[in-house]
Amino acid sequence: MSASPLTDFSKLCIHTITTKPWTIEEAAKSFSREGIGGITVWRDALQGRNIAQTGQMLREHNLQIISLCRGGFFPHTEISGRQKAIDDNKKAVDEAEALGAPLIVLVCGAVPSQALEVSRKQIKDGILAVLPYAEAAGIKLAIEPLHPMYADSRSAINTLAQANDMAEEINSPWLGVAVDVYHLWWDSQLEQEIYRCGKNENLFAFHICDWKTPTLDMLNDRGLMGEGCINIRQIRSWVEKAGFIGFNEVEIFSNIYWSQDQGEFLKKIKESYLKYS
Amino acid sequence: MSASPLTDFSKLCIHTITTKPWTIEEAAKSFSREGIGGITVWRDALQGRNIAQTGQMLREHNLQIISLCRGGFFPHTEISGRQKAIDDNKKAVDEAEALGAPLIVLVCGAVPSQALEVSRKQIKDGILAVLPYAEAAGIKLAIEPLHPMYADSRSAINTLAQANDMAEEINSPWLGVAVDVYHLWWDSQLEQEIYRCGKNENLFAFHICDWKTPTLDMLNDRGLMGEGCINIRQIRSWVEKAGFIGFNEVEIFSNIYWSQDQGEFLKKIKESYLKYS
Repeated sequence: MSASPLTDFSKLCIHTITTKPWTIEEAAKSFSREGIGGITVWRDALQGRNIAQTGQMLREHNLQIISLCRGGFFPHTEISGRQKAIDDNKKAVDEAEALGAPLIVLVCGAVPSQALEVSRKQIKDGILAVLPYAEAAGIKLAIEPLHPMYADSRSAINTLAQANDMAEEINSPWLGVAVDVYHLWWDSQLEQEIYRCGKNENLFAFHICDWKTPTLDMLNDRGLMGEGCINIRQIRSWVEKAGFIGFNEVEIFSNIYWSQDQGEFLKKIKESYLKYS
Repeated sequence: MSASPLTDFSKLCIHTITTKPWTIEEAAKSFSREGIGGITVWRDALQGRNIAQTGQMLREHNLQIISLCRGGFFPHTEISGRQKAIDDNKKAVDEAEALGAPLIVLVCGAVPSQALEVSRKQIKDGILAVLPYAEAAGIKLAIEPLHPMYADSRSAINTLAQANDMAEEINSPWLGVAVDVYHLWWDSQLEQEIYRCGKNENLFAFHICDWKTPTLDMLNDRGLMGEGCINIRQIRSWVEKAGFIGFNEVEIFSNIYWSQDQGEFLKKIKESYLKYS
């Protein structure tokens, strides 16, 4: 059972990192001109800028600010490192508030020299330490489970089941989950875990791109929708059946696309969004 | 709770692909001289040889033949492709019988253009088609679940839970599972699924190596035990607690190690085997 094809770009959100060669000002201008509805801002795109004014600039371009990427990276072997991570996540909350982003996506972190269950405990402790601060600012947090190939150094949370478990244990309306098809497409439990996530009102964000065969780089060789093996429309149908009515966020890290003309790339994103998402 | 350190090489098995630059004759001579107990033979190492005589040669070097790698790759979009795969798996049974290998490891296969559940059905059908032939020859088959980063094109079976499910559904004493730490280390269900596997007498093989940070190549950058983040000794303790008394098989694909002197590499394998396995 598939979702209806998408027919316009009102629910299309693009991450600033997707068009990394562009400044956020260039991205805003181009996204706006192409009728794209939303933008997710990566923190590096805000470097050296007045964040509140940047948020204003995005809104003046009729772009809805969907989220700030990213917080997280809570695990460290030293307590000082864990405290530094908590401080940085509070800083991210300040930035999201200034920008006018209602949500921060968490790449939770992992340390190769440390057992995954230890990292998971530190992630939970870190989220609990940041959550009251986020709530006071009116900012939500979303745990993004990452593909198991990132379990060594990027996230000890590698399935939607684990993210759901943690969100349900912490049980706050300010904490939920971000579902990214790239990280989760392979999981035979995905459909049921998406429904579980929606039922508990934890489904906060939906990220799309594709998995290419072969994948030439473990980090920066994501494909445009339709270039790979992920049945994105099927997963979108599950997400929508679970009650999600938010944006479809295109998050593509790609050395190949970053080396090309970003205006042409944006046209390809729009085409593949309608055709394959 | 860790397993006891290993103190000798009687349960050490090395895959021919681990020392790929060596012919099987060179490997046999070196493994034997170094007191290694077992060898797993990759089919490419048998190219152009009399297989029965090669098996005899290995036994004369006091090497126990642990398994033949590999069968599988059952899914195809065309029925002719699936039949070809079944025929090739029967050929692998013939080769294992001639060689004197009691077990064939299955890399089950996947097709990027085909849904994972379709590939899983074709894997099951393929195994069912080959199993009577294997049983008649006295050869066991082991499903090896592969890391989710190989779900696009190498295996639609990506967790031990899925491999256990399939082995239990088919329910034959001739079908079991191969546990490889590289593919499964990240899974929070691993310990319980290893016990389940053992309890059902499906734990047929145990493969070791390590996961490096960063991993530079998705296929051929595996680490020596101790070079990465996998707690191999802990996983060995679970495998042994599950009743496994077989060999610890070192299976390392590594462009880096293959470019080095294989005699030196073999010494490193022995050292890290005692220290980190």
